[in-house]
Amino acid sequence: MSLLIVGTVAFDAIETPFGKTDKIVGGAASYISLAASYFYKDIELVSVVGDDFPQTFLNTLKSTGVKLNGLQIKKGEKSFFWSGKYHNDLNTRDTLDTQLNVLENFDPIVPEDAKQPDFLMLGNLVPAVQQKVITQLTKRPKLIVLDTMNFWMDIAMDELKKTIAMIDVLTINDSEARQLSGEYSLVKAAQKILAMGPTTLVIKKGEHGALLFNKDEVFFAPALPLEEVFDPTGAGDSFAGGFIGYLAKTKDISFENMKRAIIFGSAMASFTVEKFGTERLIGLSAKDIENRVQEFVDLVQFDIS
Amino acid sequence: MSLLIVGTVAFDAIETPFGKTDKIVGGAASYISLAASYFYKDIELVSVVGDDFPQTFLNTLKSTGVKLNGLQIKKGEKSFFWSGKYHNDLNTRDTLDTQLNVLENFDPIVPEDAKQPDFLMLGNLVPAVQQKVITQLTKRPKLIVLDTMNFWMDIAMDELKKTIAMIDVLTINDSEARQLSGEYSLVKAAQKILAMGPTTLVIKKGEHGALLFNKDEVFFAPALPLEEVFDPTGAGDSFAGGFIGYLAKTKDISFENMKRAIIFGSAMASFTVEKFGTERLIGLSAKDIENRVQEFVDLVQFDIS
Repeated sequence: MSLLIVGTVAFDAIETPFGKTDKIVGGAASYISLAASYFYKDIELVSVVGDDFPQTFLNTLKSTGVKLNGLQIKKGEKSFFWSGKYHNDLNTRDTLDTQLNVLENFDPIVPEDAKQPDFLMLGNLVPAVQQKVITQLTKRPKLIVLDTMNFWMDIAMDELKKTIAMIDVLTINDSEARQLSGEYSLVKAAQKILAMGPTTLVIKKGEHGALLFNKDEVFFAPALPLEEVFDPTGAGDSFAGGFIGYLAKTKDISFENMKRAIIFGSAMASFTVEKFGTERLIGLSAKDIENRVQEFVDLVQFDIS
Repeated sequence: MSLLIVGTVAFDAIETPFGKTDKIVGGAASYISLAASYFYKDIELVSVVGDDFPQTFLNTLKSTGVKLNGLQIKKGEKSFFWSGKYHNDLNTRDTLDTQLNVLENFDPIVPEDAKQPDFLMLGNLVPAVQQKVITQLTKRPKLIVLDTMNFWMDIAMDELKKTIAMIDVLTINDSEARQLSGEYSLVKAAQKILAMGPTTLVIKKGEHGALLFNKDEVFFAPALPLEEVFDPTGAGDSFAGGFIGYLAKTKDISFENMKRAIIFGSAMASFTVEKFGTERLIGLSAKDIENRVQEFVDLVQFDIS
């Protein structure tokens, strides 16, 4: 059994109504790996950074059980950098700067001993690069989960659809589900998207929770109403990390178990937004996670007598 | 035991992306009464219409158990009329026309034998008129629920706050909760609003469900992901009607029972939006409602093992 995670490991500079950061560690695969590591230890990471990337964060990843044989460190090059500013409602943001750097020519190389993962999590990346990972595998994983975004729908829809046809679970937000399907109703959107190949669709609605669809069933997981959302960056990736980590741990990809996985994913996301960057995802205890999950149970449980 | 419902009984003309209506029956109290009547039969309505209002709809109300002794029919005057057009997302709308007519000088008169209700539901109206109903009662109801809207926050905030201080449960939407409290976080907004007097706050989030707060607890009820929302008019009022009707039926105003009441309210709202106006709220069977509530149970139930 193993879990292969592919995505960006990068720098972010973030401004929210509550403060701003200099360059801090970010990137989809950073959040995914940290969140997944609380549930499962046999994780391989495939990504790329420049030699400007801090070894301390890589050590943190290693210490949580993430293997870095597939992490390319490009000498004399710079890591991917994104800078953004959130609006007052924290639901929308402007990109201030994007420097692709090492990502421009990223050619993912899956290490030999990682070519037969049971679980594959493809974080948001160029769809062609995501495909390139799938085609290197020598055994079809039990489950492939793919995250993507509107940007690729705008500029590479055909390639994206080809990639989506190769996977099992797609995670996107509500406006992306509408864009991808051309349907406003999320129920109709889900059915159209499932017809593109995946057996399962997760629609992330941020502060409004998440919906899980397969052909016949639907499940809704709320987001916790938080007193303060400090920085939403990485929430979706932490969600994906908790989701795939819990599935890898439990080795059960039934719809019933995916419901549980979504709750654990939501719990991990609820930690991430409490501080800037990856800070809150480091050093959580099993009890912290258990208590947070219990808050979800308490939030939605009712008993119709 | 009895339930007193106060609010508009009126005409609407509605345009949605799916069609448009001529003048049809609408008004907060129409939806509230119909929705509540599925749970509870001892209902008194206080409202006002002109002599242009169709007797057939009044007969429908009577047939569901709603007493109309407090309904004033103004000879030679016209009923309140509202016309609106929904945008493509159905979450926002433009008001095309508002004719106050009989509402302009509405002086609510609670019939003598309705002055000691156990439950009082104040639908959206001028806050001073809502107050005038409370002050006519000769016994404090077990529970007073009040619905209002941003319009009164814009033009009559002081009067509205006085009214809010007199009630138990306030129902508003998320942007109204933010406006009323000056807080963006709904958790903080809820605590500020509860400090204004009510013991309980319901924040309606439309397609994103509803939150129930008291000082120490929070509960989240989802909205059903519907294949097609046809006309959102009256959804919030149907929700309030199901909520208060269920509480009146069960005579239990604990937080635990309010959770159930919110699910029944959400179920009633989910029917309303399937057709124009009040159409879908007429002639439902007990089985229809039971099945719909089961869909809510199925939607959110999970079992963390």
